[in-house]
Amino acid sequence: MIEIGRKGAAAWPARVCLLGEGRWGTAAGAILSENGHQPFFVHHAETAWPRNFDLLCLAIPVQHVRETLRRLPAPMVPVVSLGKGLEVGTGFRVTEIVRDAWGSEAVAALSGPNFAEEILRGLPAATVAASRDEALAAWVQQLFHNRRFRVYRSADLIGVEIGGALKNVYGIAGGLCAGLELGENASASLLTRCLAEMSRLGLCLGGRPETFAGLSGLGDLILTARSRQSRNFLLGYQLAQGISLKEALARAGGVVEGVPTTASVRENPLFREIKKPLAEEIYQILFEGKEIRRSLLDLLEREAAPELG
Amino acid sequence: MIEIGRKGAAAWPARVCLLGEGRWGTAAGAILSENGHQPFFVHHAETAWPRNFDLLCLAIPVQHVRETLRRLPAPMVPVVSLGKGLEVGTGFRVTEIVRDAWGSEAVAALSGPNFAEEILRGLPAATVAASRDEALAAWVQQLFHNRRFRVYRSADLIGVEIGGALKNVYGIAGGLCAGLELGENASASLLTRCLAEMSRLGLCLGGRPETFAGLSGLGDLILTARSRQSRNFLLGYQLAQGISLKEALARAGGVVEGVPTTASVRENPLFREIKKPLAEEIYQILFEGKEIRRSLLDLLEREAAPELG
Repeated sequence: MIEIGRKGAAAWPARVCLLGEGRWGTAAGAILSENGHQPFFVHHAETAWPRNFDLLCLAIPVQHVRETLRRLPAPMVPVVSLGKGLEVGTGFRVTEIVRDAWGSEAVAALSGPNFAEEILRGLPAATVAASRDEALAAWVQQLFHNRRFRVYRSADLIGVEIGGALKNVYGIAGGLCAGLELGENASASLLTRCLAEMSRLGLCLGGRPETFAGLSGLGDLILTARSRQSRNFLLGYQLAQGISLKEALARAGGVVEGVPTTASVRENPLFREIKKPLAEEIYQILFEGKEIRRSLLDLLEREAAPELG
Repeated sequence: MIEIGRKGAAAWPARVCLLGEGRWGTAAGAILSENGHQPFFVHHAETAWPRNFDLLCLAIPVQHVRETLRRLPAPMVPVVSLGKGLEVGTGFRVTEIVRDAWGSEAVAALSGPNFAEEILRGLPAATVAASRDEALAAWVQQLFHNRRFRVYRSADLIGVEIGGALKNVYGIAGGLCAGLELGENASASLLTRCLAEMSRLGLCLGGRPETFAGLSGLGDLILTARSRQSRNFLLGYQLAQGISLKEALARAGGVVEGVPTTASVRENPLFREIKKPLAEEIYQILFEGKEIRRSLLDLLEREAAPELG
C-alpha cells in the first residue's frame, strides 16, 4: 500500500522521476520545477532506479512502454502516465500496461490540450489529472497545478485516457481534411463527427459521457485536429498531399501516436460492434492504401442518407 | 393549415422567396437553384409579396427581423429562418419573432457550420433543418439537401436555434483569445468551456443536450471561434488588438450578430440563475470597457480553484 502526499504537497517538495525525455516530458518537468518540486529524468534504456523518489511519470511512446517497464523493477511509488495512445496487440491504455507489467494499482493519467512548446513558452493551458484513487488524483493535481497550468481532477481514468488516445487518430483525419483543402465547413463537420465517434468508443469501454465533452476529450481533439503543431495532423496533411506514410513518418521527427493507435482500435474486439466509420477509413488510408479524397468525400456524403425522408 | 411538400419534393420545383440578400441568403439561393428549385429574392424594404410561392426563407439580420415582418402581411407559407441570433429586448429566437409578429406556426430553421463563401465555391458542407413539425423539417431537408450540402433533420428547433445564436457570442471569445496570442492550448480549453456554457444556457430553454454536441452546436462553434472567416471572431480579434468596438463594427462590413446577442443573453431573466462566466466577461468587454487581457486570464485562472484538494 502506497501512501500518497503524506506530508501535504504545498509544503513538501516531491521528487518526481520522469521516464523518457520527449517534448512533453520536458514540459512536465519544467512545470514541476516551477512549482518547487524536484523532477529528474531517467533514460528509457535504464535498468535500475535511482534512490528515493515519490512519483514516477511515464513520458515514453506508448508502443515502447511495455518493453521499457520489463527492464525495470516495479517502483514502490504511484505512476502517472503522460502518454496518449493504445497498445497494439492488447488495446491497453498506458495505465493498463503499467498494471499488467508491474501490478501497480496506484496509477493516474495527466491529459488535456497541451502542446509542450506553448507550455515551455509560458502560455496558459489547462489539463486533467485522472485516477480511480481520489487521493492520488488530488495529489497529482496539486503537484502540477499553478496559475498558468490549470489542473482539473477526474475519477474517470478510462475516459481521460481514451480521449487522449483517440484524439490522435482523429487528428490524422483533421490533417487529411485540411490537406485536401476541403474547407473549414467540412473540417468543422468532421470534428463534430469525430467527437461523436470518440464518445461511442469510449463509452463502450466504461468512460463517462461528460469526460469526452471536456478538456481531455473535446479540448484535446480541437487542438490536435486543427493545428499544424500536432504531429498527427501534419501526418494526415502530408498524406493528403500525396506523400507516402513511410516518408511522412520519417519527416515527423518523433512518434506519431495516432498511427499505431488506429491499428489498435481496428483490431480491438471490444470495438467490433461499434459504429466507427472514421476510424475505419483512417485505417484503410494508412494501412491499405485507400484513395484519400474518395474516402473523405464518401464519409462526408454517406451519413445524411438514412435521415432523408 | 398549411400543407407541406404535397407534390413530393423531388419531382416538384418549389418557388422559394428569400427575404434579404446577404451572403448566406445568396448561398442558400444557389443551393436551391442547383437542386432544381426556383428561388427569388425580395428586398427587406418591400411592403408586399410577389404572387405564388411555396416557402419563405428569412436571411436578414436578427435585430431587423421584427421591423421587416411588420411591414409585410403574414405569408400563407412556411417560414425558414437562416438567421443566427437572439432579439434584444425579448430574448426571442428568429422563429419566435416570426410567430410573435405573424402568428405563423409552420416555422423551421436551417443552421450549421456553413461559411457562405465556401458553399458558393462548391466545397462540401453539412447543416441541420429543424422544426417541431416533422413534415416541415423533412421538406426543408429535401429542398436543400444534395451531394455536397448534406442536410440533417432535427425536431429540436430550440436547441438548433440557440446553438446558432450563441456560437456568435463565443466566436467573439475565440477571436479575443487569438488576438491576445494566448496560444492554441488556451483556445482549445476556452472552446471546451464555451460548449459547456452554451449547453447550460440552451438546456434551460428546453434544448436537448445532443443538439449542442452536434453540427448546429459544436460544429458551428468550432467554425466560428477559430476562423478569420467569421465576423464575430474577427471582431474579437480586433478588440484584443486595441481597436474600439465602434471601429471594429465599422470594419466588419456587415452585421456582427454576436454583439447584440451578447446583450440579449445578459438581459434575459431566464438566464439569470445560470452560470455563464464567459458570456458575462464578453458583455463586460463589449459594453463596459473591461480590460481584455485581465478578463481572459481571470477566466482561464478562475475555474480550477474549487476542485483543488
